[in-house]
Amino acid sequence: MAHNLLQGKKGIIFGALDEHSLAWKTALRCVEEGAQIVLTNAPIALRMGEIKKLAETCNAPVIPADVTNMEDLKNLFTKSMEHFGGKIDFVLHSVGMGMNVRKGRPYTDLDYDFNHKTFDISAMSLHRVLQTAYQVDAINDWGSVVALTYIAAQRVFPDYSEMADAKALLESIARSFGYHYGIRNKVRINTVSQSPTKTTAGSGVKGFDGFMAYAEKMSPLGNATADQCANYCVTLFSDLTRMVTMQNLFHDGGFSFTGVSAAIAEQMEK
Amino acid sequence: MAHNLLQGKKGIIFGALDEHSLAWKTALRCVEEGAQIVLTNAPIALRMGEIKKLAETCNAPVIPADVTNMEDLKNLFTKSMEHFGGKIDFVLHSVGMGMNVRKGRPYTDLDYDFNHKTFDISAMSLHRVLQTAYQVDAINDWGSVVALTYIAAQRVFPDYSEMADAKALLESIARSFGYHYGIRNKVRINTVSQSPTKTTAGSGVKGFDGFMAYAEKMSPLGNATADQCANYCVTLFSDLTRMVTMQNLFHDGGFSFTGVSAAIAEQMEK
Amino acid sequence: MAHNLLQGKKGIIFGALDEHSLAWKTALRCVEEGAQIVLTNAPIALRMGEIKKLAETCNAPVIPADVTNMEDLKNLFTKSMEHFGGKIDFVLHSVGMGMNVRKGRPYTDLDYDFNHKTFDISAMSLHRVLQTAYQVDAINDWGSVVALTYIAAQRVFPDYSEMADAKALLESIARSFGYHYGIRNKVRINTVSQSPTKTTAGSGVKGFDGFMAYAEKMSPLGNATADQCANYCVTLFSDLTRMVTMQNLFHDGGFSFTGVSAAIAEQMEK
Amino acid sequence: MAHNLLQGKKGIIFGALDEHSLAWKTALRCVEEGAQIVLTNAPIALRMGEIKKLAETCNAPVIPADVTNMEDLKNLFTKSMEHFGGKIDFVLHSVGMGMNVRKGRPYTDLDYDFNHKTFDISAMSLHRVLQTAYQVDAINDWGSVVALTYIAAQRVFPDYSEMADAKALLESIARSFGYHYGIRNKVRINTVSQSPTKTTAGSGVKGFDGFMAYAEKMSPLGNATADQCANYCVTLFSDLTRMVTMQNLFHDGGFSFTGVSAAIAEQMEK
Repeated sequence: MAHNLLQGKKGIIFGALDEHSLAWKTALRCVEEGAQIVLTNAPIALRMGEIKKLAETCNAPVIPADVTNMEDLKNLFTKSMEHFGGKIDFVLHSVGMGMNVRKGRPYTDLDYDFNHKTFDISAMSLHRVLQTAYQVDAINDWGSVVALTYIAAQRVFPDYSEMADAKALLESIARSFGYHYGIRNKVRINTVSQSPTKTTAGSGVKGFDGFMAYAEKMSPLGNATADQCANYCVTLFSDLTRMVTMQNLFHDGGFSFTGVSAAIAEQMEK
Repeated sequence: MAHNLLQGKKGIIFGALDEHSLAWKTALRCVEEGAQIVLTNAPIALRMGEIKKLAETCNAPVIPADVTNMEDLKNLFTKSMEHFGGKIDFVLHSVGMGMNVRKGRPYTDLDYDFNHKTFDISAMSLHRVLQTAYQVDAINDWGSVVALTYIAAQRVFPDYSEMADAKALLESIARSFGYHYGIRNKVRINTVSQSPTKTTAGSGVKGFDGFMAYAEKMSPLGNATADQCANYCVTLFSDLTRMVTMQNLFHDGGFSFTGVSAAIAEQMEK
Repeated sequence: MAHNLLQGKKGIIFGALDEHSLAWKTALRCVEEGAQIVLTNAPIALRMGEIKKLAETCNAPVIPADVTNMEDLKNLFTKSMEHFGGKIDFVLHSVGMGMNVRKGRPYTDLDYDFNHKTFDISAMSLHRVLQTAYQVDAINDWGSVVALTYIAAQRVFPDYSEMADAKALLESIARSFGYHYGIRNKVRINTVSQSPTKTTAGSGVKGFDGFMAYAEKMSPLGNATADQCANYCVTLFSDLTRMVTMQNLFHDGGFSFTGVSAAIAEQMEK
Repeated sequence: MAHNLLQGKKGIIFGALDEHSLAWKTALRCVEEGAQIVLTNAPIALRMGEIKKLAETCNAPVIPADVTNMEDLKNLFTKSMEHFGGKIDFVLHSVGMGMNVRKGRPYTDLDYDFNHKTFDISAMSLHRVLQTAYQVDAINDWGSVVALTYIAAQRVFPDYSEMADAKALLESIARSFGYHYGIRNKVRINTVSQSPTKTTAGSGVKGFDGFMAYAEKMSPLGNATADQCANYCVTLFSDLTRMVTMQNLFHDGGFSFTGVSAAIAEQMEK
């Protein structure tokens, strides 16, 4: 059921790869709620994914951008403003890639060129996006930016490896830039720390299925789905949450504040 | 602008004293968004306040209840379910009273009978409300409970005195009961940590005006108003935030994650 | 091996019941490190426990005190200062009792008289101790107070029940009073959040053994023992940690910042 | 007064530039407490600083190492073990450099090559140090690693700029590696979040003096000095804190948990 929560709003969605993506679901929900959007992703992801289907459904242009390339990002914001005929109101940053994880290198044997690339794609990219938007003045006053993150930024989940550090960096950037963008334009910037979600990206991580089952049992409400994450992002883009900024918001069915659940305790006794 | 976010939902609002109250504003916004509500407060507060005006606007019955009295609370939930013809969907707990503060006793010279009463009214009351609802099974699956709190639960604001401890206790109760109610009925329980707000209750605190000015200068977006708090509560009562539970959510314009603002640094140099 | 870290220091140790107690071990270590101490506990605990043995080893007087009784506490501090011929330097608060837990009442069916008593004994007692010391000016400048707590104050461990709320309250009181006592006398106040420890008190909790095994597997260094806790308290009473105050310090082998360990993940797959 | 807390222990101290450095003071205190040490710093810092004086006082070799260079780090650990005739017991990481800050570029106009270099020197360097030590198996079981950090990792202090993000990354790396090194060798890894300290490095930051005064007024015990930081590090290197790991430990006179002090509130009213 739609509520026109984003009526008249314009946004950019980063990172919709395929229909399992958090960004894909969020794009759909934003449009249902009355928003116009621009879709973007890295050129290689655009080739691999099925974004055209989404673009048609959403009546949205696709503007490729490598998030580590400042020219691409400037082009993205400039073109988006041309397309919309004005500034934008919200941004979803759903971007991450663990190069060492992907190459099978353990946390105690990182390659630092990969590690730098991981940080650049997964965390510094948020700074690049925000700095570009800030400098070309692309976001309306009271705009809203959300970046997706994971609780490994706070506690160790060994298989998540260097991505934990990338997410800690991402969350810090959200806070830091949230201060400056808040002062100048009342733009708010938050991170949403989502349950493990069976996306195409997530599924690649070693031990992912076992981990999802663990999180499901540990969370009083179970794991949050991608659809529910999209709903939550809609509230954060709406005008109803204008004073929430510089926060890391757990969207995880209670996982983050459960030390142990009865279900896990039982499982442990087996 | 209303979005019918709470269409068909039924709720109980604790603590609407007068038009400055956070609970008052939230009651109005909930009704605007399509909810039916029951209003409640302590008998003495009902006599002092202007709740009848609000009740008329909201077309809501007023059912008195002393939050430290289990019979009153049972009566409240039973009568509310009779009134609605069914279970309820949301609860706002906006209740607090610092007995030692009110009597002018400093934190280093507390009267412990007052202190116990402060905790009973301001924190244990949330447990009493939840336990009553849980035992008479008054809340629908996926219902939502919000209690209002303040950042003094995390960091010391000397004038806030024993209320800081009460709020820490309140937030713990929200987490603890959130686990149990989540497991049984998918009911979510959160606290909203609101900017200092010029309510009739807040105004009574010593040094309140100076403190509000400080918080205003420290927050990149300024202090959150009561109206904005009401909007935020609406999102938390809606179905769009179903997987957020056991959280303490700062609604404060960024105050909580600002170490020092440029405005405060400047003021300090004077 | 002793280091004379507490040479010339005088302290009061609350809560040494028997040789398994954290307070018992801490008392021994403090004396080994050169401190003089006074032992105290509730009259009933003194009768049940074996504190005389400890008192002899430590050459320490035992002064009974019910921590919910202000006369008892005043007597304790006055007599201790007489005994020492001067003010004291450190205090260990290791006191707790979950009345509803003990009576087998679940968290969703608390008796509120018991609940109040739980809070009074387990948390408000710290305020009572500090307020008494503050008013009779019993602690030397740069003194140190440590209260023992548990991570259930931050995350839900269902069997810990109302004691979680009591510990959250305790930690808040440590922060709040730490501010005031710091300003006036540079006295620092911290809580130590210890691994589950097989004390006589701890063993009474339902499911305790299973839980200890879980924590052991979750902690990269394993659970911290009572002896290790005593060592840590010694550092906090020493002059080497003078600027640490108002903190909750996890002493838990890394449990608090581990989301999941490889050992638990493996166990889950069984 | 020395306590032989580090008798027989061997350590490596990174980052002693001159007598104002936190690492300088810590080196002196470790030696006073019975440790043998190796000093290291970047070649350029060795030329600029006065480390020879320290090396003589401490009877310690100086082994240059660029913390972004894996060959240098391997050489450092290998040579140190040769020097000591065995493995080491503790490491102090006191390394940081904000390239954009130094070049006067504001947070909203970062140069990303500089930014990457800032992260590499200030944060990834800790991973490089740990990975090197882990791979050449340079640290004894129950060894201890401390990295110095700052509260800007949690809350925004605008002038601290990109260094806030670097410190957040540093703290995450300490947690992540703390898990792995804990499992394999019981090595503990913590960060100490120190008050602003008038070091040669710190003094360079814009608005530093004003900020130190602010922190002094906000902290119930005042700012922690470099000497006090050294004392605290000694406790963390000692065997008395063996079960503390993966923690960020505030050493700041209570600044971190003070929302506002009476002194600041007064100053605000001027």
